[in-house]
Amino acid sequence: MRWLIVSLVTTIVISTCFCVRYEPNWASIDSRPLPGWYDDVKLGIFIHWGVFSVPSYSRKLMPAWFWLYLREMKLPDYIEFMEKNYRPGFTYADFAPQLTAEFFDANRWAEIFQSSGAEYIVFTAKHHEGYTNWPSKYSFNWNSMAVGPHKDIVGELAAAIKMNTSLHFGLYHSLFEWFNPLYLQDKANNYTTSYFVDRKTLPELYELINTYQPEVIWSDGDWEANSSYWKSTEFLAWLYNDSPVKDTVVTNDRWGKDSTCHHGGYLTCADRYQPGKLQKRKWENAMTIDGQAWGFRRDVTYSQFLSIHTLISTFVETVSCGGNMLMNVGPTKEGFIDPIFEERLWQFGEWMKVNGEAIRGTRPWKAQNDTINSNIWYTMKGSDVYAIVLEWPQGDTLTLGSPIPSTSTTINLLGYPDQFQYTTRPSGGIDIKIPPIPANKMPCQWVWSFVITGLMN
Amino acid sequence: MRWLIVSLVTTIVISTCFCVRYEPNWASIDSRPLPGWYDDVKLGIFIHWGVFSVPSYSRKLMPAWFWLYLREMKLPDYIEFMEKNYRPGFTYADFAPQLTAEFFDANRWAEIFQSSGAEYIVFTAKHHEGYTNWPSKYSFNWNSMAVGPHKDIVGELAAAIKMNTSLHFGLYHSLFEWFNPLYLQDKANNYTTSYFVDRKTLPELYELINTYQPEVIWSDGDWEANSSYWKSTEFLAWLYNDSPVKDTVVTNDRWGKDSTCHHGGYLTCADRYQPGKLQKRKWENAMTIDGQAWGFRRDVTYSQFLSIHTLISTFVETVSCGGNMLMNVGPTKEGFIDPIFEERLWQFGEWMKVNGEAIRGTRPWKAQNDTINSNIWYTMKGSDVYAIVLEWPQGDTLTLGSPIPSTSTTINLLGYPDQFQYTTRPSGGIDIKIPPIPANKMPCQWVWSFVITGLMN
Amino acid sequence: MRWLIVSLVTTIVISTCFCVRYEPNWASIDSRPLPGWYDDVKLGIFIHWGVFSVPSYSRKLMPAWFWLYLREMKLPDYIEFMEKNYRPGFTYADFAPQLTAEFFDANRWAEIFQSSGAEYIVFTAKHHEGYTNWPSKYSFNWNSMAVGPHKDIVGELAAAIKMNTSLHFGLYHSLFEWFNPLYLQDKANNYTTSYFVDRKTLPELYELINTYQPEVIWSDGDWEANSSYWKSTEFLAWLYNDSPVKDTVVTNDRWGKDSTCHHGGYLTCADRYQPGKLQKRKWENAMTIDGQAWGFRRDVTYSQFLSIHTLISTFVETVSCGGNMLMNVGPTKEGFIDPIFEERLWQFGEWMKVNGEAIRGTRPWKAQNDTINSNIWYTMKGSDVYAIVLEWPQGDTLTLGSPIPSTSTTINLLGYPDQFQYTTRPSGGIDIKIPPIPANKMPCQWVWSFVITGLMN
Amino acid sequence: MRWLIVSLVTTIVISTCFCVRYEPNWASIDSRPLPGWYDDVKLGIFIHWGVFSVPSYSRKLMPAWFWLYLREMKLPDYIEFMEKNYRPGFTYADFAPQLTAEFFDANRWAEIFQSSGAEYIVFTAKHHEGYTNWPSKYSFNWNSMAVGPHKDIVGELAAAIKMNTSLHFGLYHSLFEWFNPLYLQDKANNYTTSYFVDRKTLPELYELINTYQPEVIWSDGDWEANSSYWKSTEFLAWLYNDSPVKDTVVTNDRWGKDSTCHHGGYLTCADRYQPGKLQKRKWENAMTIDGQAWGFRRDVTYSQFLSIHTLISTFVETVSCGGNMLMNVGPTKEGFIDPIFEERLWQFGEWMKVNGEAIRGTRPWKAQNDTINSNIWYTMKGSDVYAIVLEWPQGDTLTLGSPIPSTSTTINLLGYPDQFQYTTRPSGGIDIKIPPIPANKMPCQWVWSFVITGLMN
Repeated sequence: MRWLIVSLVTTIVISTCFCVRYEPNWASIDSRPLPGWYDDVKLGIFIHWGVFSVPSYSRKLMPAWFWLYLREMKLPDYIEFMEKNYRPGFTYADFAPQLTAEFFDANRWAEIFQSSGAEYIVFTAKHHEGYTNWPSKYSFNWNSMAVGPHKDIVGELAAAIKMNTSLHFGLYHSLFEWFNPLYLQDKANNYTTSYFVDRKTLPELYELINTYQPEVIWSDGDWEANSSYWKSTEFLAWLYNDSPVKDTVVTNDRWGKDSTCHHGGYLTCADRYQPGKLQKRKWENAMTIDGQAWGFRRDVTYSQFLSIHTLISTFVETVSCGGNMLMNVGPTKEGFIDPIFEERLWQFGEWMKVNGEAIRGTRPWKAQNDTINSNIWYTMKGSDVYAIVLEWPQGDTLTLGSPIPSTSTTINLLGYPDQFQYTTRPSGGIDIKIPPIPANKMPCQWVWSFVITGLMN
Repeated sequence: MRWLIVSLVTTIVISTCFCVRYEPNWASIDSRPLPGWYDDVKLGIFIHWGVFSVPSYSRKLMPAWFWLYLREMKLPDYIEFMEKNYRPGFTYADFAPQLTAEFFDANRWAEIFQSSGAEYIVFTAKHHEGYTNWPSKYSFNWNSMAVGPHKDIVGELAAAIKMNTSLHFGLYHSLFEWFNPLYLQDKANNYTTSYFVDRKTLPELYELINTYQPEVIWSDGDWEANSSYWKSTEFLAWLYNDSPVKDTVVTNDRWGKDSTCHHGGYLTCADRYQPGKLQKRKWENAMTIDGQAWGFRRDVTYSQFLSIHTLISTFVETVSCGGNMLMNVGPTKEGFIDPIFEERLWQFGEWMKVNGEAIRGTRPWKAQNDTINSNIWYTMKGSDVYAIVLEWPQGDTLTLGSPIPSTSTTINLLGYPDQFQYTTRPSGGIDIKIPPIPANKMPCQWVWSFVITGLMN
Repeated sequence: MRWLIVSLVTTIVISTCFCVRYEPNWASIDSRPLPGWYDDVKLGIFIHWGVFSVPSYSRKLMPAWFWLYLREMKLPDYIEFMEKNYRPGFTYADFAPQLTAEFFDANRWAEIFQSSGAEYIVFTAKHHEGYTNWPSKYSFNWNSMAVGPHKDIVGELAAAIKMNTSLHFGLYHSLFEWFNPLYLQDKANNYTTSYFVDRKTLPELYELINTYQPEVIWSDGDWEANSSYWKSTEFLAWLYNDSPVKDTVVTNDRWGKDSTCHHGGYLTCADRYQPGKLQKRKWENAMTIDGQAWGFRRDVTYSQFLSIHTLISTFVETVSCGGNMLMNVGPTKEGFIDPIFEERLWQFGEWMKVNGEAIRGTRPWKAQNDTINSNIWYTMKGSDVYAIVLEWPQGDTLTLGSPIPSTSTTINLLGYPDQFQYTTRPSGGIDIKIPPIPANKMPCQWVWSFVITGLMN
Repeated sequence: MRWLIVSLVTTIVISTCFCVRYEPNWASIDSRPLPGWYDDVKLGIFIHWGVFSVPSYSRKLMPAWFWLYLREMKLPDYIEFMEKNYRPGFTYADFAPQLTAEFFDANRWAEIFQSSGAEYIVFTAKHHEGYTNWPSKYSFNWNSMAVGPHKDIVGELAAAIKMNTSLHFGLYHSLFEWFNPLYLQDKANNYTTSYFVDRKTLPELYELINTYQPEVIWSDGDWEANSSYWKSTEFLAWLYNDSPVKDTVVTNDRWGKDSTCHHGGYLTCADRYQPGKLQKRKWENAMTIDGQAWGFRRDVTYSQFLSIHTLISTFVETVSCGGNMLMNVGPTKEGFIDPIFEERLWQFGEWMKVNGEAIRGTRPWKAQNDTINSNIWYTMKGSDVYAIVLEWPQGDTLTLGSPIPSTSTTINLLGYPDQFQYTTRPSGGIDIKIPPIPANKMPCQWVWSFVITGLMN
């Protein structure tokens, strides 16, 4: 009879388990474990697309910030661009009908993203301009169904990703909107009122999540106010307790100027965040293939793109230090991904076919950057350690300072058939003997992964 | 001591005056006397202008309703118009950047309106499309400053009217917006929610009145819901008690489907309302110079315009029965008033120069339409009665059935030097002897006013 | 026997008629009798429409000359208009795709023109801009089929006029094109070369006439060069001898700076030519309903239009002095005739219904303007003389100085039933007794025609 | 007396020198030696840009042929593209104002072309659409100054190339224009008339050469008529005898359907001409980096671009067989070169830095493709022979079948320090011993050049 009671208790425990409800304060919100899928996947694709994709211009700065540069900062470059190319008085909103998206094909995007080896995407549902890439109920005639593409871009992309790929689907959402008068009113009131949050931000966030069920909410545009103004913990409590994605959704940390780099889900801290050492919490390096810009620039030059070598090197460092990398692509106003982006993604995918084992599902090792050779970053999976080498050694020896080999230690290069010889360094570390491998025998063109087994450390 | 008493009484009156506060119910709202200026002026100019002025098309119906015909009613004419002239998928919002207003000159408009003899105007601040002709805080990127004209049209017109004319300035405002998702949500909820009213309608009405201080609020777009949904009495109580125009503002009756033709300020009942007999309450005949349309039609033909004779005849009947007439003009998307409208307004002004005495400041007489001659309508000012004749008599006698002359009765024609002979009809009424006045001696070309003094009735 | 001789003579005349071939010199060209229909009809409608109908702007000058004012004369108004409303560098040719003509309906135009009482039209096949309103073989991608309307405007109008009206169809054609490089080359060569004439002007003229068979060729744009450069007499010899319209075509005098007002068909001399006295040769007064402009102006005001009284008065003077009047209308870029033009044409038609007898088929009388009353102009048909009165007499007598009555002389007013009494003036002329006709008995509102029979002179 | 004779001879020689005048027949035209610079330079950049860069669309075919596919061939893809994205009736000429070229920077283009290692460029002055990228006197309002860019694109590019690079400047010119009515007329007349050639083709060719002095005239669009219709030999006689570029200009063979692959300057025969063996006359392989298209395609994908390996391999084969390669780039309508093109050009330039010695100034050797190893192509300079290897050998031996070594023969790899060992093959040829060169020691990434000295053959 006792058993029966226990059983009953267990049942109760289980239901209690379902009862863990997060409360709208940071302590409770921060206590939620990050859903496991996120740490395993390492690589995501970020996509910036909106009305800014029409002027698609940025001499030195960020095309997605075009409106701010022009209207508030009145940067001479941007004023001159408008004066040269548009009728006087042409406004930012006048651009919207030109966001034609005639070549937008969500399945083609999905295919390109999948081919890169990434396992999640984050798409700008709404940037600081306030234009929603879905038919928001709260953005009358300033959304992608009403003006421009005449499509539910978020919806089409969500369907394509979910149905035709193994990727996780995520959405970027800007809390503030630079020039929304309701926001400006709250701001003028020193954030003692919350017209904007109550009528725009929160209704839209609920709508987004209920409609498209994203597994990443990448919040942004928070920095002018505290999370209390944004009512972030209230929203996150709902997201974690009651939303349709409560079990799998991950989110970031940009939920108020008190929150960034401190609270929420994983940390992003700053754009292109790359701390270079292990972090206590899961973090993400959101960066761009076009070295400067998030949105597409019609006048971008080849030299402004990061090389595939730089991209992979950055990625390896990020993963080694416990981060994920969210690599940005900016499609054109036609809704098309320029071939140069496609090439980088394809090259990344080629690399991942060989080196994915050293990346996916790994955890940071004891050491991140090798103590002797700064071109080496480590990852770990089970008892295997991966030493990922950014530059191929010039001579016949590759010296690693961090690993301590055992007698059973083996060293292999991913994608290469033969085991490598090594010697233990007296002062610690390993000297791997590098044979002269001809170019056409190399497993990949850039950045190589040695898998080391049976280490003492 | 006498002075003291008077002073006291005055004080009492004044404080009473301040004490009358209207309550948010129809009984209280309806008890407010209509400010006197409105009944005196008789003629107003209505102006319809908005995004609908871009397609500016209407085979048989109303160009201002273009969006509804196209999107909801899917009328074949409108679908065909779009298919023939625009790229597939082109939306209504895509029209907005083409609302260029490059020839809009508020002072020129003011001058044209003044020249018509009208004494107030009513301009569409916002029509059912929801586009605001002022930079509304609640209509982000769907207003005349953000997209299209890049001007505060309401503001420029208010300034021109107030500074350079003697006209009263009024604004039309649509309560509902056909396709505003918040409105559609309330509607789907059977008006048990009020997201739209609280976030859009009321904030905008307060903003309009506080900013532009109009003396007419011409409400419309009310008919799908009751005034309780619209919170109309709450708004009107504020308008009458506390608004900056509380002493002079007049409003109409379109505040809910329970309100139209029953509550509010003056009655409009239906478009082109012309009851043909005396009404108990002050009313207004809102009608159009283009016989069918409120907005401009790029394909309007001459025969579709009302003749000046019809316009004046309609006006005379309206005034005789106690109404005001609000005569509509539809400017082009360039912000220009087509010469055919200007001609009608100018002709009206010419007529008013001669006949204004029989119109302005008059009150309905005992009779409105003459009992014998249906081409005659009466007005009254003090003890003078005006018999306004729509058609000049064919013979040498003009018979009036309604007036009962006294021995001191005199009859004159406004704008004509000589007194007219008459005989009293045995059965009642007067036979005025009409001399053969050559065409070039007539005081005006259409519709003539006889002033009759010393009547028994 | 008499019959036989007459028959013979007739035959000879006819065969002579077929034998006359005109030679390419002015003496021969000028010897051709003007086909009779032209002198009979008196009233034509001129229509100016082209790429200039897109900017459709003219502060004080001619909208059809927009390009010249902007590019060559660099008038500040026009430069400012472009700077305010278009992107920098926007060219005149960039306007062409906006010449949409979506409301162009040739049959509707035809109906409006017919209703005016006119009996011919002249449409701008090509203005000085060089854009052809037909798919010219010699104006590749600068014609109405290739860019803008995507229609053969000349062709559609020709068909509508010829099939559905009794009007004669005519075409305006500019010899020069301001900015055609071939023309500028000939001009730079002081007209010693003729690249432009040989490759553009003449081929296009032949094409126009062979394709559309117009009965009026209204030449223009000749004034910078002599007719020898334009090869005008060669063209006219072909037109008169061999063209498909050789028997009925009429033409004007603008065939070179030596030709205007001297050679060709009828004389036009200058725009709005109104000599005020009888001319030896048939002439035409080409003038505009919009008092300043030939093309439509989107910013035209009512006061800029000629009143119907002025139009008819001008017409009567023109006809009395032996001219025809060609009254201009400027349609919109949509291909639509603004109602103000339609109203003037309709008013003209109403007048012609009553007074056409005093106009059509008449010839100048001995006197044109009356010797005593300058408000009277005469025409004649058979033995009847028409005295057309611009202003109705103020008193009871209308004094005419020119006619000398016989005993059988009668005087009637067109459209009025009763004969008029008159007395012969001792010093010559007639005093017509004017009874007091009430306004509603007048046959028309403006300008009245007395028909006088049995005069001595 | 002797002196006199010598003098006479000298005079004769000199005058002969001046007397070599080419006559307008193919025998004479073909007798002209090709100016030497052309054979030395090997690599040119072709640039296709015109109104077709606006739709910039091509599912499977050539975007520069958009107009033909749409209007004449009525291909379903193209009709559907227009129907989906443009208003009905939108014409090709309507595209022209959208050819904005706002990012066109001739110096930037020049820099990119120079960096590729190419030594000449050929730019489409006019393609089959007839639109001229310079302000042609013969293409009124259908040129880049009048409509679209509002720039003399040819002029700006000529200046940039001539002033800031060492490249030779060339122009592509289409003889025919698909839809020019004058051409269609000549065609309908079975080319018995020459309206088009006399008024358009030839005047434009003379204008082009006199104005911009190109050193390459790349003729095209000849194939529907014989060179006699095009008057090609007359033009070429002038070009060779009297034009400002008579000494240095080279031209191709597309001067009539009897001419292509037979007459003129160098032979092009067909697009992407690659005969695979030595040709008797100098020839050129005009091909594209985008594997299918000459003009830019807004919807081009990465996989459609040729890899740099394919590009260089194609080039090496071409040069080995005596050809030049003209590698095409299609800029965007904004006048910008997409980064993917820039990358390919930059990669080519990197390769040329190492391997240019094996290319520039070389001549075909006895053998072209190696008899044993089809991945090897030969060139020759002086007594040095270059064996260019498309694929790096898999093993430790590279076998060449064609060379016959002497005792003094040496073998080096361009860009690599050490001399290579080899053995003479008994049956002829050489076995080069390939040491295991690590990837980071390789002189370049794709296609390597061995220089072999002292051969017997």
